[in-house]
Amino acid sequence: MTNPTAGQGPGRGGVRLARLAAIATLLAAPVQAAPPTVPVTAAELGLMQGFPTAPDKRVSRENFMQYPYSRWAFQHIRELQPTRDMYRGDGPVTPIATAPADLDSLSFTLVGGKTISLEKWLEESVSDSFLVMHKGKLVYERYFNGMSRPSQHQMFSATKSFVGTLVLCLIDEGAIDPAKLIQDYLPELRGSAFGDATVQQVLDMTTSIEFNEDYADPDADVWKYGYVFGISVPPADYRGPASIYEYLATLKRAKRPHGEGFLYVTPNTDVLGWLSSRVSGKSVSQQLQQRIWQRLGIERDGYMWLDALGEEMAGGGLNITAADAARFGQMILQKGEFNGQQVIPMAVAEKILQSGDHAPFNRLYQDPWYEQIGFAYHDQWWTFATPHKPVSAIGVFGQFIYIDPVAQMVIVKQSSHPQAESEANEVEGPQIWHAIAEHLMKQP
Amino acid sequence: MTNPTAGQGPGRGGVRLARLAAIATLLAAPVQAAPPTVPVTAAELGLMQGFPTAPDKRVSRENFMQYPYSRWAFQHIRELQPTRDMYRGDGPVTPIATAPADLDSLSFTLVGGKTISLEKWLEESVSDSFLVMHKGKLVYERYFNGMSRPSQHQMFSATKSFVGTLVLCLIDEGAIDPAKLIQDYLPELRGSAFGDATVQQVLDMTTSIEFNEDYADPDADVWKYGYVFGISVPPADYRGPASIYEYLATLKRAKRPHGEGFLYVTPNTDVLGWLSSRVSGKSVSQQLQQRIWQRLGIERDGYMWLDALGEEMAGGGLNITAADAARFGQMILQKGEFNGQQVIPMAVAEKILQSGDHAPFNRLYQDPWYEQIGFAYHDQWWTFATPHKPVSAIGVFGQFIYIDPVAQMVIVKQSSHPQAESEANEVEGPQIWHAIAEHLMKQP
Repeated sequence: MTNPTAGQGPGRGGVRLARLAAIATLLAAPVQAAPPTVPVTAAELGLMQGFPTAPDKRVSRENFMQYPYSRWAFQHIRELQPTRDMYRGDGPVTPIATAPADLDSLSFTLVGGKTISLEKWLEESVSDSFLVMHKGKLVYERYFNGMSRPSQHQMFSATKSFVGTLVLCLIDEGAIDPAKLIQDYLPELRGSAFGDATVQQVLDMTTSIEFNEDYADPDADVWKYGYVFGISVPPADYRGPASIYEYLATLKRAKRPHGEGFLYVTPNTDVLGWLSSRVSGKSVSQQLQQRIWQRLGIERDGYMWLDALGEEMAGGGLNITAADAARFGQMILQKGEFNGQQVIPMAVAEKILQSGDHAPFNRLYQDPWYEQIGFAYHDQWWTFATPHKPVSAIGVFGQFIYIDPVAQMVIVKQSSHPQAESEANEVEGPQIWHAIAEHLMKQP
Repeated sequence: MTNPTAGQGPGRGGVRLARLAAIATLLAAPVQAAPPTVPVTAAELGLMQGFPTAPDKRVSRENFMQYPYSRWAFQHIRELQPTRDMYRGDGPVTPIATAPADLDSLSFTLVGGKTISLEKWLEESVSDSFLVMHKGKLVYERYFNGMSRPSQHQMFSATKSFVGTLVLCLIDEGAIDPAKLIQDYLPELRGSAFGDATVQQVLDMTTSIEFNEDYADPDADVWKYGYVFGISVPPADYRGPASIYEYLATLKRAKRPHGEGFLYVTPNTDVLGWLSSRVSGKSVSQQLQQRIWQRLGIERDGYMWLDALGEEMAGGGLNITAADAARFGQMILQKGEFNGQQVIPMAVAEKILQSGDHAPFNRLYQDPWYEQIGFAYHDQWWTFATPHKPVSAIGVFGQFIYIDPVAQMVIVKQSSHPQAESEANEVEGPQIWHAIAEHLMKQP
């Protein structure tokens, strides 16, 4: 992988919040060198057990982003941070029919020759949940590490695809013009990296942004995003931005033009969250609650992670159950129709399901794996050039809502992998899901 | 009112957490001198509206305990603090039948001659919700200040009655002996104010405790309870207890013997929460979830406010909807039976419904109003000597679950009054509820 600018390379998988996680890890303790073959569970470790919890078993704001503390934390973000509920409403739950398929015995041969069973891969990729929907039915549902169906799990950057969906809905309604500049809607961002970028460029993350990621510089931008949301603990003398909106205005443009190339920078999505709120008069969680969750008939309230001023982490703060994530993915697969109604406009779902343009994606990233899987990114969704042209929401540490329109398959994976971006999740995962799709398509 | 020891007098209503609220108020801004006749709502003030919220409209950890910021905060504690969910489960909601009674036109003449209508009193007492159950049916249900049926509201010390109920259940099962000393269960508290007190003395708040409430002393105990839970913001150089358990061990005995007199000290309940967790192996929220909420068929998850180490505020951290509080009160009224099952043992509910002993209550408190209403306190419940012998959970700023066994009436009130203890809530409230009971009993 070639870094497009010094100190600016996104990791394999291109998921930006990874860097913040890495920082938190660096701050808190030595980096976990290699992923475990058999991950330890929160319960086996005794994390947050006992009254009181022993000091070495505590999960805190200082260590929660770090494995193995993350094994507990990613199911309990609201026990560490301020959060805002997304109420499911008092309507009935939309049932998901089940049609169990025997996938446990499936074995996969991956690029490079490694052979692994589904069960072993779920372990190696440090899964907390893994659900497979096929033709609208739940064919496989597994929970690990103390998780169960009602558990709400941190989605990290998979959140971005929800925010992108909201913005596409507002565009469809004519409330936002994708060709307009961000500063037309958010004059506060005039002069920042985002002011003279178009809405579409922010959606596609082709903005030109100078994102200072020099870890030796205590004033680096990358630290401050973490400070704003309690991802990492600021120094006692920290005097930087207190909220995400203040923070966004501090980011500067790089020299290249907007639109030239894709560069994964999480704050783009925070701009979109702000934009959607300015235009709709509602926070991201309120919009999701009204437009999506209450119409999907979800099982359990979701919630959003907040900064100290009560603003939401649009870039990565969603916490939902695996089953509700599956409902969302199924709704996209069904072109917006779910629970007997058109939840989002068909045109919006069809746009999400389109393949992205590889040219801007590859301009700043030259990674053999990116080439192989054929990644692209548009409208806050990842797309793959593999035969079924799947699209996916992706978050660090192994969060996925993967939609295969050819196989009519939706996969949800929630994880607490030690590595923000791992071989097991980002490289092996898509290969395995494609193999599962092929297997399911062969079933009578 | 005579203070039992220097700097130790509980306020009118005897609700201890009041002092902490008062501290937060003192810290944050000038004290509101008099309650408003017409309270302003959070929406009218524009609190937490806009993207971003204007600086003077922000509710933060610095101002949230102070009116008018509290008008927003008491419905949104989890947007400010870490919290732990109490999951309602996936079972059906137990419906509450409605039989609307026309109470709006009721007018009351209070002791002293003041005449006021129910509507006006609900306004003057700065209500957020007011529900009246009569013979198991909801006869009156009103929400104010942006609150609606699914809103979860901070209950403050009304939480204590839930914790007392859990401990009575554990006593009923033989898991706790009320005659044993606290240090028999919690050796960490040996040498503290609580170590050689019996469980029953802690339940009844007749422990002998030196509770340093000297506001000029930065090391005073009373500050530290607030610091532990983020009720008030500690100074930058604060090096005191980080968790409630550490804090409890720092409290010292007074010279008088345990059992001599009632003194309202919130940490007694935190000892009970700890005791119940030590014995059951479950946090207070887990116990409530399993024993009470999931069996009542509540409408919406509740939640508990946590300290920085993830321990729960048993003394005042419960957040629930008004309708679910009504279900709990109705279950107590029905001697533990609700939703077709015995939720708590009949003997426990009968003990809760017993009148308290006024002798220990009046030993350290001589307040004409206490005498008039005939307050007593046992097992973490308030009792009144008025003709119907009601019992009540009570929390500062106007939180009540009031149970009248003669009228078969349950009243829930949630409020955000500027004063922790107010004439409108603590003095006028019980008179008005008694009059409502008499009115309902006369209906055909």
